[in-house]
Amino acid sequence: MGFRHVAVLGAGAWGTALANVAARPGRAVTLWSRDAALAAEMEASRENRRSLPGVGLADGVLPRADPAEALAEADLVLMVVPAQHLRATLAALPPFPPDLPVVLCAKGIEAATGLLMSEVLAAARPGQPVAALSGPSFAADVGRRRPTAVTVAAAEAELSRSIAEGLSGPAFRLYHTDDLLGVEIGGAAKNVLAIACGVAAGMELGASAAAALTARGFAELTRFGRASGARSETLMGLSGLGDLVLTCASVQSRNFAFGHALGAGASLAAAAAGRLAEGVATAPVLCRLARQRGVDMPVAEAVAALVAGRTTPGAALDALMARPARAEGDA
Amino acid sequence: MGFRHVAVLGAGAWGTALANVAARPGRAVTLWSRDAALAAEMEASRENRRSLPGVGLADGVLPRADPAEALAEADLVLMVVPAQHLRATLAALPPFPPDLPVVLCAKGIEAATGLLMSEVLAAARPGQPVAALSGPSFAADVGRRRPTAVTVAAAEAELSRSIAEGLSGPAFRLYHTDDLLGVEIGGAAKNVLAIACGVAAGMELGASAAAALTARGFAELTRFGRASGARSETLMGLSGLGDLVLTCASVQSRNFAFGHALGAGASLAAAAAGRLAEGVATAPVLCRLARQRGVDMPVAEAVAALVAGRTTPGAALDALMARPARAEGDA
Repeated sequence: MGFRHVAVLGAGAWGTALANVAARPGRAVTLWSRDAALAAEMEASRENRRSLPGVGLADGVLPRADPAEALAEADLVLMVVPAQHLRATLAALPPFPPDLPVVLCAKGIEAATGLLMSEVLAAARPGQPVAALSGPSFAADVGRRRPTAVTVAAAEAELSRSIAEGLSGPAFRLYHTDDLLGVEIGGAAKNVLAIACGVAAGMELGASAAAALTARGFAELTRFGRASGARSETLMGLSGLGDLVLTCASVQSRNFAFGHALGAGASLAAAAAGRLAEGVATAPVLCRLARQRGVDMPVAEAVAALVAGRTTPGAALDALMARPARAEGDA
Repeated sequence: MGFRHVAVLGAGAWGTALANVAARPGRAVTLWSRDAALAAEMEASRENRRSLPGVGLADGVLPRADPAEALAEADLVLMVVPAQHLRATLAALPPFPPDLPVVLCAKGIEAATGLLMSEVLAAARPGQPVAALSGPSFAADVGRRRPTAVTVAAAEAELSRSIAEGLSGPAFRLYHTDDLLGVEIGGAAKNVLAIACGVAAGMELGASAAAALTARGFAELTRFGRASGARSETLMGLSGLGDLVLTCASVQSRNFAFGHALGAGASLAAAAAGRLAEGVATAPVLCRLARQRGVDMPVAEAVAALVAGRTTPGAALDALMARPARAEGDA
């Protein structure tokens, strides 16, 4: 099974679910929260009632508030903090042993810099072995041991294979790839596109319109990914298309739910209240990168205009849907 | 607007919805049903209460029970009969003028012969100009004038363009392509894959598993389409991915609903009762063609085994989901 001590850094719903699937006999899994009260509460109740209520902590999961304690003896780290907080979290953590592999489990592009999560890690911890875990997976499904399949990627193929083997269980299946870039780009872009699908759903445009938007969003994601060096089969796989399909179809997705609220008439502030919709931060930087790379992304541009308050849901969707009859595949 | 008289042959939900969107001032749209009582009922109530209740017939839609009457003066035909009935319906219809374009609006592969709908038409009416209309579109959405985008394909690019322009309206948008094969293959394969997604939903495996199945189904559809000569951008477009996403996510889809019933424990007979799930007929022939072309389609094979009674939903899904950790993209 490879890893004897897995440190999960970040105890939101996804971190808690991943700690549970990582746990097995003979392996310690520390689950770090920067919130000491939450760590104590999880220890006492054996449950993360704030973020993943109703799902008990698996045997072997050890809540910790001290990062040094969480990391001591770890031979694998899962970073599960929101994308826009990765840099600050890394700055606050103790140094990692140089050969400790770090698996990035949050999706997004750093808004201020345009960097992918692996690039943020490389800047903060040069030379650290890095992987990314991404795919269609709601924490609630994973927590309840419903069947889930995700991708783990590392430039070094042997690393991705050992992580996939070390974390796969009967219900949680990991596939491995060496296309780290492809996995990171798919995960970042889908959050933006999911906002558009949520807007369409909130406006009650119907399932047919939502499906058309998903397909057009995937075409954009593919164009951007290919222009950035990602491989088609990765973009078409679990971490790209699979995750896009999941995120574009369910209010369980925070990005979809944010768009849904906007589409139903909520203000930007009201739609954002109480949920972290990562696509809001990634939309403008994704569009900036796309323009730099000469890629047309009308759906992502509509989302960027919407979250900046430059357009309304009705105007944005009209512009996307009501275009003249033309050849498919044209931008 | 091009066409002065559109004949819609087949008055199910989809034929009725298409007749409505084809109708506009100065154009006659005949809507043929082989059932004289239904034609009379539609004429009297200005509604197809059997198949599309709650949606009135648009002005200019003329129900007809006599096919010769429906076809007289038609300059465009929409064939909207189920895929497995196309050959028999064509045999019963009067001859068409040689230059009358026929738009095929049903999806599937003829089970007995392995032929696509355009090939069945070519056998019955050699030299007839042919197009196919396909994409994510529930009849109920189109009937209610919710925004919908579909693809129309013809080997002759000018024909697909004129049909797209002639039928596009504010809510119903048509994109055109010359990749007739790609559009037909996407439409046929997605019905099969949707059954698998329905089974997963009926078994309550969760949204994450359904999304993973959709992505893996799309990878199969793409492999099969490419091996058959279809273009990637068509398979990734509205008629391929778009329609797959819609069909894999909604009980409004008859194929999904059939799979859902099976997954929830219904017998094959009970699941099939009262609905025409086209994927049931297409699954075995799709798998036969895939094997001939050297394409691995495990999801479609699972569906074929299921509809033949050779496996159970639980065993089929277990085999698909619980495979060892391995490289993504491997078959």
